[in-house]
Amino acid sequence: MQQSTHTISVSAQGRKLYDITAQVMNWANQQAISTGLLTLYIQHTSASLLINENYDRDVLVDMEAFFNRLVPDGDALFIHTVEGPDDMPAHVRTALTQTSLSIPVVEGKVALGQWQGIFLFEHRYMSATRRIMMHLIGE
Amino acid sequence: MQQSTHTISVSAQGRKLYDITAQVMNWANQQAISTGLLTLYIQHTSASLLINENYDRDVLVDMEAFFNRLVPDGDALFIHTVEGPDDMPAHVRTALTQTSLSIPVVEGKVALGQWQGIFLFEHRYMSATRRIMMHLIGE
Amino acid sequence: MQQSTHTISVSAQGRKLYDITAQVMNWANQQAISTGLLTLYIQHTSASLLINENYDRDVLVDMEAFFNRLVPDGDALFIHTVEGPDDMPAHVRTALTQTSLSIPVVEGKVALGQWQGIFLFEHRYMSATRRIMMHLIGE
Repeated sequence: MQQSTHTISVSAQGRKLYDITAQVMNWANQQAISTGLLTLYIQHTSASLLINENYDRDVLVDMEAFFNRLVPDGDALFIHTVEGPDDMPAHVRTALTQTSLSIPVVEGKVALGQWQGIFLFEHRYMSATRRIMMHLIGE
Repeated sequence: MQQSTHTISVSAQGRKLYDITAQVMNWANQQAISTGLLTLYIQHTSASLLINENYDRDVLVDMEAFFNRLVPDGDALFIHTVEGPDDMPAHVRTALTQTSLSIPVVEGKVALGQWQGIFLFEHRYMSATRRIMMHLIGE
Repeated sequence: MQQSTHTISVSAQGRKLYDITAQVMNWANQQAISTGLLTLYIQHTSASLLINENYDRDVLVDMEAFFNRLVPDGDALFIHTVEGPDDMPAHVRTALTQTSLSIPVVEGKVALGQWQGIFLFEHRYMSATRRIMMHLIGE
């Protein structure tokens, strides 16, 4: 049984879903694990992880539109406003999505479904460098 | 330390919560692991995983009703409508729930709480065969 | 490769976010794992896990306010009302957040980000003892 770890840095240019599937898969495939478990972890509270459809980019537009409406910027409900009108919504959007994801590795492949992609969901409007840690265990 | 993997297929007959607890537990118990980690992973973007109350079936009705209201079918907000009025809502509902779940195995048992069941949350109205991968590591 | 497990009990005094970061980190640090994976699992359906900002306590107030508005107590939509007006909302809030969390351990440290804390999100108004299981694998 062996383990590998690796950190991806993503230079996010504002609120959007960023496809990180290729970066994740490239690294995982290089580890030559036949059976195992891949875990992704994002070290932030204003950006999160999401597995969603990787085919029609309209899905990403709609996903963002939905979260934008569900958690309005500048909502009068919020008292934590010192970091800007999109900051507390960013924390809520992070809570509603994922900070960690685990995907089995089976027969030498990370077992993503045919239509699944892995996304960084950036919730702030400003640019930010986001760190995603990967941990792989298996043999 | 050993690993096992297994895939469950669920024949989902439309939008609903399907109890898969017995299928998961039966397989995990057969692996004879005393201490370990069980991970479930669903390979879809229109169906998800949920741990919730396993006792009163009204909870499942209410859960579905809540998500139905929160993410309305045919919402004018959405531009990805080519696959039907329930398709983009299905992706959003998947984003709001889980694609992967991890449960420790302690003293030979998957450590589900007394009132917890494991459910496939199907978000489409059409019938579909859904694949859930299981990975168990331990000894 | 080794494994350790441990259960944290939290005496929750009503609906609120409870910071469990120190309890988690203290135990994990004692296991002297250099590289590995820490998984937290909550054995309840009316309380959940959340990683969120650990610095400004206003964030916790706003988080609670948001979920309170999103999933109203006593909502006429719900038929599962026998356990009180906050019971079905508690199950929905649990579904919208996390039952399990996985965090890599890298260079001897649980890889929490600088601003991340780990919280028990209690969704009921009554007092309750909540059990969170931890599983650590690595070497």
